[in-house]
Amino acid sequence: MTHFPEPGAAYRARLDARAGRLAGPTANIAPGHVQANLAILPAGVAADFLRFCQRNPKPCPLLAVSEPGDPSLPGLGRDIDVRSDIPRYRVWRDGELVDEPTDVRDLWRDDLVAFLIGCSFSFEEAMLENGLPVRHIEQGCNVPMYRTSIPTLPAGPFQGPLVVSMRPLKAADAIRAIQVTSRFPSVHGAPVHLGDPAEIGIADIGRPDYGDPVEIRAGEMPVFWACGVTPQSVVAAVRPAFCITHAPGHMLVTDLLNSRMAVL
Amino acid sequence: MTHFPEPGAAYRARLDARAGRLAGPTANIAPGHVQANLAILPAGVAADFLRFCQRNPKPCPLLAVSEPGDPSLPGLGRDIDVRSDIPRYRVWRDGELVDEPTDVRDLWRDDLVAFLIGCSFSFEEAMLENGLPVRHIEQGCNVPMYRTSIPTLPAGPFQGPLVVSMRPLKAADAIRAIQVTSRFPSVHGAPVHLGDPAEIGIADIGRPDYGDPVEIRAGEMPVFWACGVTPQSVVAAVRPAFCITHAPGHMLVTDLLNSRMAVL
Repeated sequence: MTHFPEPGAAYRARLDARAGRLAGPTANIAPGHVQANLAILPAGVAADFLRFCQRNPKPCPLLAVSEPGDPSLPGLGRDIDVRSDIPRYRVWRDGELVDEPTDVRDLWRDDLVAFLIGCSFSFEEAMLENGLPVRHIEQGCNVPMYRTSIPTLPAGPFQGPLVVSMRPLKAADAIRAIQVTSRFPSVHGAPVHLGDPAEIGIADIGRPDYGDPVEIRAGEMPVFWACGVTPQSVVAAVRPAFCITHAPGHMLVTDLLNSRMAVL
Repeated sequence: MTHFPEPGAAYRARLDARAGRLAGPTANIAPGHVQANLAILPAGVAADFLRFCQRNPKPCPLLAVSEPGDPSLPGLGRDIDVRSDIPRYRVWRDGELVDEPTDVRDLWRDDLVAFLIGCSFSFEEAMLENGLPVRHIEQGCNVPMYRTSIPTLPAGPFQGPLVVSMRPLKAADAIRAIQVTSRFPSVHGAPVHLGDPAEIGIADIGRPDYGDPVEIRAGEMPVFWACGVTPQSVVAAVRPAFCITHAPGHMLVTDLLNSRMAVL
């Protein structure tokens, strides 16, 4: 049994989401707390997806997996109900987005398994605390993300290219960012590449496949981290009969502390 | 009082140097043991040089400083006599190289202070253990070193540019090398730069200021570490009335273990 501090901002955010008082993005909500990506899959493909995450821990760092049919996540926080505690969901049928509700209690089934996957918010907080710039935060836009030529290790039907996020840094800052983010293996960890985008199959750094382009200034190089969009794109390609994810930017706010995710 | 394992290959190497049986370079002697650069200076400038090292720990990681006039170094190993236990020395008068003896007992004075400074052999061993290539070892030549536009912090008469060593690596290997060498802050630690040499004032990567050029292959980038030649070049520029250093490649083999230098 994991013990957590007294209910604080993270718990209140979940109760607000549950009550319908919070339906927007979770950036800057409960600073210091780990936020998580969500994928809910039927048991029929859940075992394959779990194996996929195990084989690809950099893009798919699993924070928790629910028991089939059980919407609680005792490892992530007090009294969590994964069906209601996220501000907005996306419901997919046969690979098509069919709804964006604020609650999925009416869709819950005994065979569903919830996967909670680490998010770059955690290591970006550590970068900012170290005085490192995070360009998309400075520019007030989404992080640029790119499909690469780096394959993931397949499991069952799940396969596809690694997706990376990019943050431009000066060389000395890139070295420090590698040190800082290496401490967070459970939230993507160290970068997977830096420098020439073409080496990992990115043709045009100015045209990300997801998110927004950001400015790369003189003396800066692009630095690439494995991205939690990888499992989302892999799931989307499989077009499972039924799937629920969080809406982009609308994450599960957990009771875990980012600072406690650092292994060093 | 530091305790060491039973006298082994390191102690035997020092006894061989002391007896005149070892007068060559120390590369590959007593693998696993820390080797150290030497600078011996008169007390008049020793305090300034100590302050210089304190202010510039990346190029000048001090492993030990002797008491004035005392040739022992109890922190570095059993029964060390710094006047005889290095295979070959260089003696400098007014900045001019005047001799390369295998023993400096006859030159020892009560006001001399010995500075022992960490060496990249330690982190290169860790790189090789991690399966990372070290090009100058592959090519059987000296590491390429470059004067940069990065200033050191001056102390008394000691000042001058940072000198760096360079090892070419693929991006993913560079990221791993940053992780590996970050564990060794007492032997230069993490790189100071990677990528474009011009950003740190290196005009021609093919023409190092010290050592030998090495091949940079397609898909590789130069990675730069602060180098122990920095204090040597800074001392040389001051042209002290009297100074003793080790001859290049002829290091003090200590009883310290490289693996024990890792902070993590």
